[in-house]
Amino acid sequence: MKKVLLIIVTICLLFLFNACKTISIDSPNFNFEKEAEAIEEVMRKQEFAWSQGNIEEFMKGYWNSEKLSFGGSRGFTFGYDKVQSNYKKGYPTKEIMGKLSFKIIDIVPVSNDAAYVLGQYHLEVKDDSNPSGYFTLVFRKIDGAWKIVTDHTSG
Amino acid sequence: MKKVLLIIVTICLLFLFNACKTISIDSPNFNFEKEAEAIEEVMRKQEFAWSQGNIEEFMKGYWNSEKLSFGGSRGFTFGYDKVQSNYKKGYPTKEIMGKLSFKIIDIVPVSNDAAYVLGQYHLEVKDDSNPSGYFTLVFRKIDGAWKIVTDHTSG
Repeated sequence: MKKVLLIIVTICLLFLFNACKTISIDSPNFNFEKEAEAIEEVMRKQEFAWSQGNIEEFMKGYWNSEKLSFGGSRGFTFGYDKVQSNYKKGYPTKEIMGKLSFKIIDIVPVSNDAAYVLGQYHLEVKDDSNPSGYFTLVFRKIDGAWKIVTDHTSG
Repeated sequence: MKKVLLIIVTICLLFLFNACKTISIDSPNFNFEKEAEAIEEVMRKQEFAWSQGNIEEFMKGYWNSEKLSFGGSRGFTFGYDKVQSNYKKGYPTKEIMGKLSFKIIDIVPVSNDAAYVLGQYHLEVKDDSNPSGYFTLVFRKIDGAWKIVTDHTSG
């Protein structure tokens, strides 16, 4: 009986330890630096895909969901497919897409599976218009991978 | 000895239950509807304060921190004081401020103390310019009160 109880106590403590590990970004067990690197990696892959003229690969940085949202001065677009088709309409050729670079200004954790990113994008295009602007992204870690769940870009 | 172990098991289980309660927004213990109402309440108070010409009261919806950020087509501003002084510069009189109304498009929880809000603002001003635009806000529950920690407004 004593042994059984000891095993139960051990299991409970292990569960508790594990639960606490995932509760808070203030927990010493939450390695935000590693998560920020993973978020940055998503954005570097987006830069690369865009600059290759590959919108479908670029889109992999976004949450593949109808709840994905994209905001700007003309309002919000909802859904992965709609966001993708807007990109394809706005940037029909590799030449128009140009070379994308992101400047990450800040990555701020809000929980162990959510963070927001403030940044600036810049497009280097042949016609020298070189559009740029600022964005706020909310990232969530979904099934182990960081994805943009909402993007607000202006400028 | 058995009694002591039983007490330990009970305490562990209570801790575990309590820990689990705060882990996830998917938990049935997390009442998001109540939180969404509290967030909306913050924004209703902001509308009211703004329309009274009271920027300092309006600012109470924001996180009073140097880490507060405000983004738009011209980039980011950091810090409560700077955001407040920008509002005061941009809207020096009650007449210029006009009557503010928010249309909340969506409130999306990301953890039990964080959510993002998509919406539209509209100003009713005497000169009939009636500016409007769209925003994405990240709210966090800080010391029991929901505050905007980052605001991206465009348009």
